[in-house]
Amino acid sequence: MTEHGKTPVTVLGLGAMGTALVEALLTAGHPVTAWNRTASRAEGVAAKGATVASTVSEALAANKIVITCLLDYDSVHEVLDPVAAGLEGRQLINLTNGTPGQAREMNAWAEEQGAEYLDGGIMAVPPMIGSPQAFIFYSGSGTVLGQARSALDTFGGVNYLGVDPGLAPLHDLALLSGMYGNFIGVIQAFTLVGSAGVKAREFAPLLRGWMDAMNDFLERAAEKIDDGDYVTGVVSNIEMQAAAFPNLAKAAEEQGVSAELLMPLGPLMDKRVAAGYGAEDLVGVIELLKK
Amino acid sequence: MTEHGKTPVTVLGLGAMGTALVEALLTAGHPVTAWNRTASRAEGVAAKGATVASTVSEALAANKIVITCLLDYDSVHEVLDPVAAGLEGRQLINLTNGTPGQAREMNAWAEEQGAEYLDGGIMAVPPMIGSPQAFIFYSGSGTVLGQARSALDTFGGVNYLGVDPGLAPLHDLALLSGMYGNFIGVIQAFTLVGSAGVKAREFAPLLRGWMDAMNDFLERAAEKIDDGDYVTGVVSNIEMQAAAFPNLAKAAEEQGVSAELLMPLGPLMDKRVAAGYGAEDLVGVIELLKK
Repeated sequence: MTEHGKTPVTVLGLGAMGTALVEALLTAGHPVTAWNRTASRAEGVAAKGATVASTVSEALAANKIVITCLLDYDSVHEVLDPVAAGLEGRQLINLTNGTPGQAREMNAWAEEQGAEYLDGGIMAVPPMIGSPQAFIFYSGSGTVLGQARSALDTFGGVNYLGVDPGLAPLHDLALLSGMYGNFIGVIQAFTLVGSAGVKAREFAPLLRGWMDAMNDFLERAAEKIDDGDYVTGVVSNIEMQAAAFPNLAKAAEEQGVSAELLMPLGPLMDKRVAAGYGAEDLVGVIELLKK
Repeated sequence: MTEHGKTPVTVLGLGAMGTALVEALLTAGHPVTAWNRTASRAEGVAAKGATVASTVSEALAANKIVITCLLDYDSVHEVLDPVAAGLEGRQLINLTNGTPGQAREMNAWAEEQGAEYLDGGIMAVPPMIGSPQAFIFYSGSGTVLGQARSALDTFGGVNYLGVDPGLAPLHDLALLSGMYGNFIGVIQAFTLVGSAGVKAREFAPLLRGWMDAMNDFLERAAEKIDDGDYVTGVVSNIEMQAAAFPNLAKAAEEQGVSAELLMPLGPLMDKRVAAGYGAEDLVGVIELLKK
């Protein structure tokens, strides 16, 4: 604690996201020690009050709480491995994008160095940091979360998922999967109507209403998945949908556009029907994704 | 017009959807002549007041307005080709699922028989017919739409797209593409968190909020597409996204599940970055879908 009561924090990495994190901390009055491989990137945050460390060791020595926000997990190791002894007694909060396995491995490695570890998955783009729309998944050490809480609160909503450090990146990637699916659907819809000269702006309100309505099925899909019951209350079974699905490819071909983004769904539907599940809801294909 | 002023209609095809259409017409007081290849299927609507025709010719002779709701366009031809002369002077409204090309071909064929043609794409499942949530895309003859309007209004909202008969199935398939993309995203998200033992019910509210938020980007994407400007106001460029995308496949592999539904997006992103568009928004991949 500093004299004005705000937890001091070290931040390693000043890309767009790291810089946004430092600015949120400074705005809330937290003393920040920042480091970046390319020193010139630190000038902006220095002007706003951050202390710039010239070496990683110096940055680690400055504060107990150390946040890393780098390109990938390999970069985290490149930066920390040479000065690993400096991690002893530190609380390492890694907000770098990665996979659940990488987070679990990093946790084990940090503990070997005598550090406590918390992993985070940022559900926001840099301009959103500090706004009510931003939130971050955390998993790993609850002790670290508790002691760093006032600093973490400056970034956005805190969503703690449990002690398994892999849970934060897993939830992060799950939401991104949802986002990419939404994108695939929307972009394919615009591609199809665009092939007939329909403006995307004209079609957008109709598509928006439809996509909003689709989300109303999400909770019911969750119940079917948890219960493993894909038959009760089916209004459009997978056999009917599998029969109509090839029209998407056929229409795209007629219109001179590609439907490649949606195509992997077809064989899964056919496989499910062939296995005798034709009367079930489409959501039963999830069984084929479990290897 | 009958004595009580409701337009009489012929309906060919009494599957789940055809039956729902007949019931909506009967409820609103329209005289209906119905035909189905398997005659026993007609018993239900006969009990509710429909006249059952024993042959297609008889059904065509009964009314000027003829609605077809069959398995596919091949079925429509199988049913109508042998009695095509009976179509002269008729208004054919085809609500069978198909592609834009099939609708254009059917329109040309119907005109050869002396019939006017309207194509429709039903955006509802059978239980929704007649409810405010149901709507139908129509395209083709505006005259048919006008004269059949009171009957068509009984099914749900009327969305007329213009004289090109292919527009209704095109819009239908575009919305279905959106739906399948949404499904791909949601099912992949549930698959990932499920691999760590997280219940779908627990994760659903978080996913729901996220997916709802994603739809907020739809209108802006439409503007970018219409303007062909994928650079202005980019917050997360495609180069960054392409670099992180492989984590989805890696995480799935670690967790022992498949990410196959999302995979076609990766090569498109890489191709766009390799072509020098790395600073653009992801939505620029639409250029690669135009063959």
